[in-house]
Amino acid sequence: MAEGVRLAIVGATGVVGQEMLKVLEERQFNVRELICLADPREAGTPIKFRGETFKVQAVSEEAFKQADIALLAVGSEISQELAPLAIKNDCLAIDNSYAFRLQDDVPLVVPEVNPEDISLHKGIISNPNCSTIIMTVAINPIHKAAKLKRVIVSTYQAVSGAGKAGLEELEANVRAIISGTEMQPQVFQYPIAFNLIPHIDIFVENDYTREEMKLVWETRKIMHAPDLKIAPTAVRVPVYRSHSESINVETEIPISLEEVKRIFAATPGVVVQDEPGNNVYPMPLYTSNSDEVYIGRIRKDFSVDNGIALWVVADQIRKGAATNAIQIAEIVVQKTLY
Amino acid sequence: MAEGVRLAIVGATGVVGQEMLKVLEERQFNVRELICLADPREAGTPIKFRGETFKVQAVSEEAFKQADIALLAVGSEISQELAPLAIKNDCLAIDNSYAFRLQDDVPLVVPEVNPEDISLHKGIISNPNCSTIIMTVAINPIHKAAKLKRVIVSTYQAVSGAGKAGLEELEANVRAIISGTEMQPQVFQYPIAFNLIPHIDIFVENDYTREEMKLVWETRKIMHAPDLKIAPTAVRVPVYRSHSESINVETEIPISLEEVKRIFAATPGVVVQDEPGNNVYPMPLYTSNSDEVYIGRIRKDFSVDNGIALWVVADQIRKGAATNAIQIAEIVVQKTLY
Repeated sequence: MAEGVRLAIVGATGVVGQEMLKVLEERQFNVRELICLADPREAGTPIKFRGETFKVQAVSEEAFKQADIALLAVGSEISQELAPLAIKNDCLAIDNSYAFRLQDDVPLVVPEVNPEDISLHKGIISNPNCSTIIMTVAINPIHKAAKLKRVIVSTYQAVSGAGKAGLEELEANVRAIISGTEMQPQVFQYPIAFNLIPHIDIFVENDYTREEMKLVWETRKIMHAPDLKIAPTAVRVPVYRSHSESINVETEIPISLEEVKRIFAATPGVVVQDEPGNNVYPMPLYTSNSDEVYIGRIRKDFSVDNGIALWVVADQIRKGAATNAIQIAEIVVQKTLY
Repeated sequence: MAEGVRLAIVGATGVVGQEMLKVLEERQFNVRELICLADPREAGTPIKFRGETFKVQAVSEEAFKQADIALLAVGSEISQELAPLAIKNDCLAIDNSYAFRLQDDVPLVVPEVNPEDISLHKGIISNPNCSTIIMTVAINPIHKAAKLKRVIVSTYQAVSGAGKAGLEELEANVRAIISGTEMQPQVFQYPIAFNLIPHIDIFVENDYTREEMKLVWETRKIMHAPDLKIAPTAVRVPVYRSHSESINVETEIPISLEEVKRIFAATPGVVVQDEPGNNVYPMPLYTSNSDEVYIGRIRKDFSVDNGIALWVVADQIRKGAATNAIQIAEIVVQKTLY
């Protein structure tokens, strides 16, 4: 096998696709050949990568033949169509969509949590939901040390979770309000500027949204904790690109705050920002454009035995999507699992 | 006693004071004489009330002699100074500040929850913290029906909680960002536009903020539930004036969702907005300028026995402050408790 990977990015013009290109460059991912794919309407769009200009090509079966690994940064329906084409052409699909995440034969991976699952793939590896990635990076170290019993999470999710259109809608929304005009929401159910919408993705069961249930289903799969009790509430907030989460956990085994902080300090991918006296705690405005999961407001939850409360923030486009997918790709390449 | 009340409003030019005037008018509170008080620097400011113009007077001991009831809408330090002056001059103080809330001889009242405590006053009745008022209106009916065991709450608090200056800072902040300029935050610790700040009021104990501990201390006092377990997280969000709360409760006695919804529908001051299929749930943008507490996303919390999850929203300036104080005053007048 020649040095470096022939890498396809599907959805190269989208928010996550664009971020993937940045992250690949920053992390010096060994790309031998870059194939930028997107909807035929976007064919020809120039894409900058490592100082060179690439042209977006229309997605095609032929394109997958030229690639070793494809990073799919498209919606579930398109992934459903394209991942089988990739497999058929001997190209490993690392898929950012919801399409295959809960399939038994598809590993769902957060490299800080379950990197060992990567080797079990049968042609597709799924990248988890953004809120789930962020939460599992924070709670898994506690789980390993003291076994989690129950997790209660309320999210504060940025508009970037809805892609470029979500980002544009918040901005247009704010401009409309400031200039005193009205704006019809298109991406979100209601105006998001100066508002909160307790509704992300569709309502699926028992009056929970799918976004909320992803926090249950995907977390259990990633952490190999099929019985973990999780109570999720997912809320969209007028923030551009970092998701925040207020998390209360209960552990089986008592664990001190000092121990939790020591573990976080030693966990790759985690940055502890926790000096209340100096106004140091994670905030979405300051965690964007970075790959880490920021944890602060670490304190005892006195309402229960062995309770701990956390405030967790991370860039939804980076660690919540692009970076996590590329970390998976790095392990795939390092262990020649493609 | 002549018909109607001689009513003083202290802090009449502030956000809460101004809202009190509106609420008094709307609810046709029987004001015989209105005395608008504020800092001497604001003396002379014209105040509109029921079509008449009143002039703001500098706060003075003399002014309290002219009033039966004073609504104090000022900070804790000023309340600490003025409430004793009111008492001394036979004027009942209904105080919106934190100053006396936890004092044993001062009733802390949410009229939907503990109206009976009003009659125990010794000259001061405290109006609770805004987030606490909103939460207790929502959880007390469940407590009465099924006894609460534990409450986990994550707040999404509007900038109006920091008064006029908070409202202005969010707007200035947004304008600065849109025009590409920088702005030094003054009211909040960091820029609040497109950001979240997990820090309201000061840090007091065990790395909790006082805003968080108010949700514990005040809720227990209002609900006469000294042992109720409460786990709070308080977060400032870029929303103008309604606070939102993601609440998970556990009850001692099993209670069905249908029963909870039936109870809410019959609770004065509560509006149920809960039709997920029709995108009906409470949102801060649509609950402002109203006196009710809006409850939606009512669902089972499957992570625990007898768990229920709620999403609660209410106007922080109205039900969280002005309206609640005036509801207390209404009971005081109705029962001649001044």
